[in-house]
Amino acid sequence: MSDPVQFDTVSPPDEASRLAALARHARLTKPTGSLGRLEELGAWLAACQGQSPPKPLRRPRIVVFAGDHGVAARGVSAYPSEVTAQMVANFAAGGAAINVLAAAAGADVRVVDMAVDADTPEDVSGHKVRRSSAAIDAEDALTEDEVDAALAAGKSIVDEEVDAGADLLVAGDMGIGNTTAAAVLVAALTGTEPVAVVGRGTGIDDRAWMRKTAAIRDALRRAKPVTADPVALLRTVAGADIAAMAGFLAQAAVRRTPVVLDGVVSGAAALVAEELAPGARGWWVAGHRSPEPAHALVLEQLDLEPLLDLRMRLGEGTGAVAAIPLLTMAAAILSDMATFADAGITSPDSERSTGIDTDAT
Amino acid sequence: MSDPVQFDTVSPPDEASRLAALARHARLTKPTGSLGRLEELGAWLAACQGQSPPKPLRRPRIVVFAGDHGVAARGVSAYPSEVTAQMVANFAAGGAAINVLAAAAGADVRVVDMAVDADTPEDVSGHKVRRSSAAIDAEDALTEDEVDAALAAGKSIVDEEVDAGADLLVAGDMGIGNTTAAAVLVAALTGTEPVAVVGRGTGIDDRAWMRKTAAIRDALRRAKPVTADPVALLRTVAGADIAAMAGFLAQAAVRRTPVVLDGVVSGAAALVAEELAPGARGWWVAGHRSPEPAHALVLEQLDLEPLLDLRMRLGEGTGAVAAIPLLTMAAAILSDMATFADAGITSPDSERSTGIDTDAT
Repeated sequence: MSDPVQFDTVSPPDEASRLAALARHARLTKPTGSLGRLEELGAWLAACQGQSPPKPLRRPRIVVFAGDHGVAARGVSAYPSEVTAQMVANFAAGGAAINVLAAAAGADVRVVDMAVDADTPEDVSGHKVRRSSAAIDAEDALTEDEVDAALAAGKSIVDEEVDAGADLLVAGDMGIGNTTAAAVLVAALTGTEPVAVVGRGTGIDDRAWMRKTAAIRDALRRAKPVTADPVALLRTVAGADIAAMAGFLAQAAVRRTPVVLDGVVSGAAALVAEELAPGARGWWVAGHRSPEPAHALVLEQLDLEPLLDLRMRLGEGTGAVAAIPLLTMAAAILSDMATFADAGITSPDSERSTGIDTDAT
Repeated sequence: MSDPVQFDTVSPPDEASRLAALARHARLTKPTGSLGRLEELGAWLAACQGQSPPKPLRRPRIVVFAGDHGVAARGVSAYPSEVTAQMVANFAAGGAAINVLAAAAGADVRVVDMAVDADTPEDVSGHKVRRSSAAIDAEDALTEDEVDAALAAGKSIVDEEVDAGADLLVAGDMGIGNTTAAAVLVAALTGTEPVAVVGRGTGIDDRAWMRKTAAIRDALRRAKPVTADPVALLRTVAGADIAAMAGFLAQAAVRRTPVVLDGVVSGAAALVAEELAPGARGWWVAGHRSPEPAHALVLEQLDLEPLLDLRMRLGEGTGAVAAIPLLTMAAAILSDMATFADAGITSPDSERSTGIDTDAT
């Protein structure tokens, strides 16, 4: 047996740096607050980095966690499981959406095979736990050893990335059937009925939707007794990919590294990560709002307001990476804009002293 | 007298290229439609360029139209008019928000003084029409010659920029008092009452809000007789900056060049531009939703769905430029992603032929 994975206590982002950033915002050549959420984002980055203005993001890293799910055999997806391994090869070749978006955002992509139901190259399979997590409507996704290994993988990947200089992290997902497992986790952790969490995933028809709802219902029944134990919940109804994502998101917070969350799979892992490492959510922003109904529940539970709402539903981390340029801009505003004093510009304070002497009313 | 400015007929973006882009989207290694609005945006760029996949954006240009407004003397802004000229200098020095965001988006900024109430350097004052447009609650903003000159300036700036290779345009604004003029235009062109269009602009208090509402009410009364004549409307209640923006937005469509609209000032100019050159709106996307109430009316009237909703209310083009990375990404998806055939990936069609043979229900 491997030892159960433990996460160190999460401390919040640095409040003094956040306040310093907000104070700096008030001195920059714009009305205070006029850049809206870009100002808040910049202050959050300052808090995460512990310095104002924040440094530019130099090494955003996307880690895509790939894994198959036995529940896919129930016909819950528009695609067959063989696509997972094919997409892992596509990521390696740079042809997937996440590769293209990451390049545009100045980020690098790493792919990790946690449970793909095929052999994959050594450079992606080093953390592999098994071939396909088991069908969660009928049996536990993982053994106790396997869930510990998956959590430890997510944790150690963060340590590797942060030690190598990563200053922003995204957990992406790839796995046929993974939105079914995600929906079960969300339903379990938010006390929601199956029909309220089931979504169209990659784009399923009505018959597949009924199969997916039934699978979620059966898995949720199995999840109920372990809902209060996040590791047991991952073992019972998640899978090695999602367990690794949960460990990744928890450890990112432990390592004081900001994270952009993606859609429903990343969100489901985040709900569990917040249980594993309370306070972790202070280190996350929501990149986007997915049309998956379970994602709205995640955002509500974590009290996160998404940056984008573009009807993206691909996964892979794409909705998070699409938001990275906003973080880049938010940091640049704080570091590169002139202050009123620098630019010799009249601020509202000086206006109040000169007075407005005409009133049209 | 200068000749009245005419705009050539606007033809729509190329539908065949749009359809070719959508067909290409269906062959890329992702479920069709799963990138949501990024897919629509890419298809729109293809239609604007007349080719699929679209080329990367190589020369996005931001033109900031600066001008003072006599109505500022009524106390409708939190800032005094002298800030306009100070900000023009700040743009030139690269210290303003639009400079910083444009750099992050790979775009260049050009500043044009249309009616700043101060002397500005030669490189920005070449199109200047007058010092400050007149106070619109009491008199016409411009003479007939001046409105023609301003429209002609916007038109010729587009011609210069497009001839120099600009492949995406943004009209930014800078001018104390300009949201008052914008609100009057929006109210006039959408048949809305003053209290429903007046906003906080750069951040005014309740007393300034009352002064602004009164000024809008008085100007709107003056606008009523000329609402059906877009040039007369600009002359009566806009100003040289907004008139130039309207000419710019109309001519961009004539020159088949895509535009990202910013907030309420750019939006008010866009409403007029659509009157000057019907169909122009087919060449525009809305970069963001501003909290200014008049902006919601603009988006509704032009039937545009904003890309971002980040409570940005600065102007300068910032809300448009913050959205440029999404266009960059949308173009890259179409040009750089692998197809199912390239990557040897099983598509949903092949899945349907192999069949899903298990049903959990």
